[in-house]
Amino acid sequence: MEQKIPYKIYLNENEIPTQWYNLRADMKNKPAPLLNPGTGEPMKAEELYGVFCEELVKQELDNDTPYIDIPGEILDFYKMYRPSPLVRAYFLEKALDTPAKIYYKFEGNNTSGSHKLNSSIAQAYYAKKQGLKGVTTETGAGQWGTALSMACSYFGLDCKVFMVKVSYEQKPFRREVMRTYGASVTPSPSDKTNIGRKILEEFPGTTGSLGCAISEAVEVATSTPGYRYVLGSVLNQVLLHQSIIGLETKTALDKYGIKPDMIIGCAGGGSNLGGLIAPFMGEKLRGEADYRIIAVEPASCPSFTRGTYAYDFCDTGKVCPLAKMYTLGSGFIPSPNHAGGLRYHGMSSILSQLYDDKYMEAVSVPQRRVFEAAELFARVEGILPAPESSHAIRVAIDEALKCKETGEDKTIVFGLTGTGYFDMVAYENYHDGTMEDYIPTDEEIQKSISTLPQIG
Amino acid sequence: MEQKIPYKIYLNENEIPTQWYNLRADMKNKPAPLLNPGTGEPMKAEELYGVFCEELVKQELDNDTPYIDIPGEILDFYKMYRPSPLVRAYFLEKALDTPAKIYYKFEGNNTSGSHKLNSSIAQAYYAKKQGLKGVTTETGAGQWGTALSMACSYFGLDCKVFMVKVSYEQKPFRREVMRTYGASVTPSPSDKTNIGRKILEEFPGTTGSLGCAISEAVEVATSTPGYRYVLGSVLNQVLLHQSIIGLETKTALDKYGIKPDMIIGCAGGGSNLGGLIAPFMGEKLRGEADYRIIAVEPASCPSFTRGTYAYDFCDTGKVCPLAKMYTLGSGFIPSPNHAGGLRYHGMSSILSQLYDDKYMEAVSVPQRRVFEAAELFARVEGILPAPESSHAIRVAIDEALKCKETGEDKTIVFGLTGTGYFDMVAYENYHDGTMEDYIPTDEEIQKSISTLPQIG
Repeated sequence: MEQKIPYKIYLNENEIPTQWYNLRADMKNKPAPLLNPGTGEPMKAEELYGVFCEELVKQELDNDTPYIDIPGEILDFYKMYRPSPLVRAYFLEKALDTPAKIYYKFEGNNTSGSHKLNSSIAQAYYAKKQGLKGVTTETGAGQWGTALSMACSYFGLDCKVFMVKVSYEQKPFRREVMRTYGASVTPSPSDKTNIGRKILEEFPGTTGSLGCAISEAVEVATSTPGYRYVLGSVLNQVLLHQSIIGLETKTALDKYGIKPDMIIGCAGGGSNLGGLIAPFMGEKLRGEADYRIIAVEPASCPSFTRGTYAYDFCDTGKVCPLAKMYTLGSGFIPSPNHAGGLRYHGMSSILSQLYDDKYMEAVSVPQRRVFEAAELFARVEGILPAPESSHAIRVAIDEALKCKETGEDKTIVFGLTGTGYFDMVAYENYHDGTMEDYIPTDEEIQKSISTLPQIG
Repeated sequence: MEQKIPYKIYLNENEIPTQWYNLRADMKNKPAPLLNPGTGEPMKAEELYGVFCEELVKQELDNDTPYIDIPGEILDFYKMYRPSPLVRAYFLEKALDTPAKIYYKFEGNNTSGSHKLNSSIAQAYYAKKQGLKGVTTETGAGQWGTALSMACSYFGLDCKVFMVKVSYEQKPFRREVMRTYGASVTPSPSDKTNIGRKILEEFPGTTGSLGCAISEAVEVATSTPGYRYVLGSVLNQVLLHQSIIGLETKTALDKYGIKPDMIIGCAGGGSNLGGLIAPFMGEKLRGEADYRIIAVEPASCPSFTRGTYAYDFCDTGKVCPLAKMYTLGSGFIPSPNHAGGLRYHGMSSILSQLYDDKYMEAVSVPQRRVFEAAELFARVEGILPAPESSHAIRVAIDEALKCKETGEDKTIVFGLTGTGYFDMVAYENYHDGTMEDYIPTDEEIQKSISTLPQIG
């Protein structure tokens, strides 16, 4: 008799992985190195030590070590909110009347409301270990800033967050959660930095962007003794830390002998997707198994599906190293898109290389279809999803409906990165009918891409 | 060797209780019956059928059946978010440097953000089973309204919520969550009911109260064919449904051979406290075990500690039956107190009788000490607690600090009813120093109590 799969698969605490998995070790084509914007040469570790903690720089540049031990103090913290459940979406399957078997890994059961805590605690730990006084960062939708403030509070580090101005104003409660954890939060662009003042002078009415907030945070980190900059997505080190999502997912599936047909995740900078797929992609790279792996991005900010694979600036102020990635150009400003976490112009270098090598697919979805899926999911599965996560829900539902047509009982796994409690303005716009599907024209994208630096 | 207690004890799905426990069956002194306000006679079942669903009336009046089967459809729904974790507060113990062992039962991992879902799904189920079209209710802080809207959406019932006006205005996002689940939300007092219009005429600037919203919801339920009224606290049936909290808690503790010394819960109308303590109080009533059981209420609305035990109106409009309870008088208006869920003037009849019979203690705590505890808890345990829940945290911490002084390693269990994501205005006031500790004077309480009906 087939073993009954429970609604929620919880691993035991002693089954939480004790090592992160470094996907790069199994990639034949390694992700392209960061380049010094001045010389065009690959960045050396020493050049990065002024910006990032030393141990994190080592992780960033390590393309070879497959498994890296998770320090005990981080494992302790993980036990505060991990293991996270792998949920069998019985209610959703029933509502869709599909033969597909749907699972989601839910990372929202913690106060940051998302998976971001997996990397923030690691980055705060290494900062503390290096004897630093504090860290700076940017945040868009606010999940990363919240996660970092929680981690810094735990280790007694100062935490300075530059929050994209439009989010700062639209999400005062997110800001208040960060304050509860002792962080200082500054709307960006601000007059506290050279780059902020310059941007304010050029664009007085600007409501900010992630690229601009990054520039400000980096400037403060590099000009304040005892501080370093930390980042919640895009970087190799972040995907390393986030591999805990995929490792737990795989352990839970293996326990019940389940082999997924496809794995679906939303993709902004790639932190969730890269973490979720890590061990599965590893098997695929080593030729041990095959899976469809699908990145879902908003139609309003389609880095994979309509961007180009090239070296680009990571930030608006162009103070960061250059990264090779699928990009829409660092000047790309996504128009009204409430999925705040998916507005970045670029994409993780690791995922960009894997996508270019055809190890994964990508689709883009318009916003209203995303909220339609979000509302259905909330009603039948009882979890109000974050707009970001709802991109993955949308495509999981679409795939499950295809199964209904074909009669196939495929196994679908998707990442539910977080909850939408601080995104109710977006839900309100959806209910009121004032939400729009903004899709950039080819001309807009072409114009933005034409500003790429001439390197590589 | 002592068995290592995990950070989070999760029961398996097949360990979720399949029966609710009816505490009244073990009480020698039963809770006093509801009285007809016109005749002063105990309400008969038939008299209540116009207000409540029939099966729920039976549960309300059943003082004898100790265990009642949970219908399969409710058990299915419980699997969406239950079992809830019993957490060993290792981080809090360490922060307090106490020898006490602290556990909390966390009911906030669902979109309603609290334990209220345990009863709303039961009440919606019986309404559906009776063939009703919809239900009406009131909500203060919004947890109950959210929980009911989720339950009604699940069973396809219409849901009309009267939300205390001050909360409606301060918490637009709560309202939006209810809308996501298809409920209609009306600020109370409204011009949609006779009682609402009357109150608006008498007190044009009023920001509403729970007692007033109850009156409006009851009026609509009793005057609209196919509708009944449902309530999220105070009632015997609600405590019955909420016994699932205590039953799960006891099963989890028993698994590890843990016997608590004291059980602590916040008390507004008594839904959480009554549910959490149910099986423990049962043992105490049957003389099988002894526990300290502590109700925690806000100093601004101290029904147990400064109220009187007498028959009183349940609502401002005096349309409901009379209940015998610890009360501050139905005209009592608690002044600025952000713990919205603990503002009710009265208290569960069951708990009132148990308190009067000295089976439990009660303490009241001022608001700023509550938020001090809330912030500490958020920082070390990683969960941002609801203001209501934080009353229990405050007293759990105080008891743990007493253990530190005496060196006793007592085992403390408290109820963490929910999360505070929709209460950030209160946190903001606390951070900004604008929060006040309002404590009513003896004269104020005396004046309010003097309006009690002369019955019983």
